[in-house]
Amino acid sequence: MPRVGVVLSGCGFLDGAEIHEAVLTLLAIARGGATAVCMAPNVAQRDVVNHLTGQPVPGETRNVLVEAARIARGEIRDLATVRGADVDALALPGGYGAAKNLCSFAVDGPKATVHPDVARLVREVHEAGKPIAAICIAPATLAACFRGQPRATVTIGTDAATASAVEALGASHKSAVVREVVVDEANRVVTTPAYMLARDVAEAATGIEKAIQALLRMIPKGSPARASVGTR
Amino acid sequence: MPRVGVVLSGCGFLDGAEIHEAVLTLLAIARGGATAVCMAPNVAQRDVVNHLTGQPVPGETRNVLVEAARIARGEIRDLATVRGADVDALALPGGYGAAKNLCSFAVDGPKATVHPDVARLVREVHEAGKPIAAICIAPATLAACFRGQPRATVTIGTDAATASAVEALGASHKSAVVREVVVDEANRVVTTPAYMLARDVAEAATGIEKAIQALLRMIPKGSPARASVGTR
Repeated sequence: MPRVGVVLSGCGFLDGAEIHEAVLTLLAIARGGATAVCMAPNVAQRDVVNHLTGQPVPGETRNVLVEAARIARGEIRDLATVRGADVDALALPGGYGAAKNLCSFAVDGPKATVHPDVARLVREVHEAGKPIAAICIAPATLAACFRGQPRATVTIGTDAATASAVEALGASHKSAVVREVVVDEANRVVTTPAYMLARDVAEAATGIEKAIQALLRMIPKGSPARASVGTR
Repeated sequence: MPRVGVVLSGCGFLDGAEIHEAVLTLLAIARGGATAVCMAPNVAQRDVVNHLTGQPVPGETRNVLVEAARIARGEIRDLATVRGADVDALALPGGYGAAKNLCSFAVDGPKATVHPDVARLVREVHEAGKPIAAICIAPATLAACFRGQPRATVTIGTDAATASAVEALGASHKSAVVREVVVDEANRVVTTPAYMLARDVAEAATGIEKAIQALLRMIPKGSPARASVGTR
């Protein structure tokens, strides 16, 4: 079975990975006949947010990898140990964590810096000709990794200010509604707005299913991890 | 639209609600044309478990309602404020939280006590003729609420020791495989094993979809919250 790396950024949309998007990504991968390889950087979260009140919790610290392990049911790797050769494709669910913990887009916008191992892994996967899906705000993370090399076409939905910041990072932005995906065939990049626009989990699910199906279709036939399946 | 109360018990299968089961429950409710009403008790978790290592974290405390709000994206009610009349059906996802925070089954087995408001709400919903779905280990929570009144037929999968403890709580146990649901029509109770048996999220999803579909079919036609939809 093809192996899809899933880059998590914590557990909870205000300070980590958007939980629904992460689970729907895992579901679409499993239903598509692929295996998910969950991973997250082993770093402190930028902040901890009380999801009942929406307010930051001063003084509390949580670790991105440890919290992401909640979504992954403990089956998760430190992203620093993952190489591009370990996966056939990569998926980045959204949530503020993608813009706070994987990169600094949430605070730095077009000046965002990226966690070095996230940037490295995205580069390795892309340069091996393998496809990448980015969901919700994660296209901004991807744009911050690429910095215009390549100039991928992505969507974060319809928000003009966010789209503008994504373009300033070197991507081309294309507006899309919640149930749509934007597929950049040349650069093997798939994006969908999910909770940038979704009003409920069913709306998010439709776009994520389409995105992961497109991702799986773009996996190169001769990808090593995929080829290894034939030897079982 | 019918309103389905979803009783969460934290965020993470080792000390709270099983995240996949909770999200799949919300997805099945939305796709079934119903509205989810998320809720959780406003109490401290029994413990906090590091999901990367599987070990308890001594001295750390988290609140069930605050953590459950991560799954509910902040749209969640203190369970103490919810009345049976507010919902047309009830769904209890699993995870150790259902057996640690909603009741004490994880430590007390057949002597389990139940959070008073959980017991009250389950009783109110049941006595109003409304159906209840319980997933994974949550049938034990439900059995602890009912205490044999009624003697509902439920499944927790195939684990003999857990099944025996559930029977000691006053329920009848019926073995089931992961993709099956057990429907007790007379008592309006639906159960499915999910991660008591599931090897991946797709297996859990199949049973949960069936369970929620059965739950929605059992909602009484004249249920007040359902009737109120007609007046919009």
